Amino acid sequence: MVRTVAPTRTRSGGPRLDASRDAAIASAVLEVLGRAGYAGLTMDAVALAAGVGKATIYRRWSSKAELLLSVLDVVGAPVLEVPDTGGRRDDLVTVLSEVVTLVGGPSGRALRSLLGAVVDDPALQEGCCRLPLANWDAAWSAVLARAVARGEVPAGAGESVAAEVGPAVLVLRWLVTGRPLDGTVVPELVDRVVLPLLRCR
Amino acid sequence: MVRTVAPTRTRSGGPRLDASRDAAIASAVLEVLGRAGYAGLTMDAVALAAGVGKATIYRRWSSKAELLLSVLDVVGAPVLEVPDTGGRRDDLVTVLSEVVTLVGGPSGRALRSLLGAVVDDPALQEGCCRLPLANWDAAWSAVLARAVARGEVPAGAGESVAAEVGPAVLVLRWLVTGRPLDGTVVPELVDRVVLPLLRCR
Repeated sequence: MVRTVAPTRTRSGGPRLDASRDAAIASAVLEVLGRAGYAGLTMDAVALAAGVGKATIYRRWSSKAELLLSVLDVVGAPVLEVPDTGGRRDDLVTVLSEVVTLVGGPSGRALRSLLGAVVDDPALQEGCCRLPLANWDAAWSAVLARAVARGEVPAGAGESVAAEVGPAVLVLRWLVTGRPLDGTVVPELVDRVVLPLLRCR
Repeated sequence: MVRTVAPTRTRSGGPRLDASRDAAIASAVLEVLGRAGYAGLTMDAVALAAGVGKATIYRRWSSKAELLLSVLDVVGAPVLEVPDTGGRRDDLVTVLSEVVTLVGGPSGRALRSLLGAVVDDPALQEGCCRLPLANWDAAWSAVLARAVARGEVPAGAGESVAAEVGPAVLVLRWLVTGRPLDGTVVPELVDRVVLPLLRCR
């Protein structure tokens, strides 16, 4: 399921997704990507999966690259809402749990299939892969910065390589080792890795 | 460059790569994968890049999947040589530096292009992606286990989620954020993240 949001404009400058039919198309793009990879992402396959005519898609997007950038704008948007639970531990758990939810769903499968597929197209690679992932990175940095502002972690913690370990372990499990990636890993990661690292610097 | 090793048999059970022509073919497979992705990996493209006839390739491998598994066997093999410098810090730095070298070269680009390409083929995904990456993981675990045996880190350190952070940060930079991934990150990672985590448990 694509989480529905309605940004007033897209960050990539492409046409905005804003209607229920667009949500069906966005879901179809993610589903096709996750199942058939970037090579299998065709306008025909998206139209079939979304239950719309191909002309409906072409009226809005002239190419699969343009369609993809619109969809990724929507996928990346929700995690821009940085949690503020009032304490660093719960903030950290919340933002990392959001990442777990995202990568475990259709968005994650779609992003995974894109990571290596667009290596020969720098513009598309930037738009496809960096955009949603950069948002997660920004949310994580914002949570750390707020913890610094509250005096809960030392100044400069957000710029240290130690700041990368939370998202890094999730990405390692997601893309490489296939170790369990569910709700239980996040509290363990925060309590045994992220907070000890911040405390013992 | 494919690092030349001559395992007596392949772990995937495929034909063994053992001659200089095979090394040229293996280099060609990685080069084509890194440039054109899995979809662009054809026997024709490999033959052209290796400077051999297509028949030469088909005499040994009946499909691109089989060829790919042979090549990945060779790519994954070197890191099975676990460093033993006599001390945990230098062991950790050495094994992580090997990972940096591998992912920064043709093997890394090839693996990256495979990560998402073979999602619809579980057998190929297992062979392609897990095999070399599992070897890095095994080398890392072996170094941690030796440090435990020497009494340099607490027992159980290798099974903790904290054990994943070293490789995890490298993978995050390699596949997701694009932050610098060179020789300088490894000592910082070991000294500011891995060793403090092991010490302050």
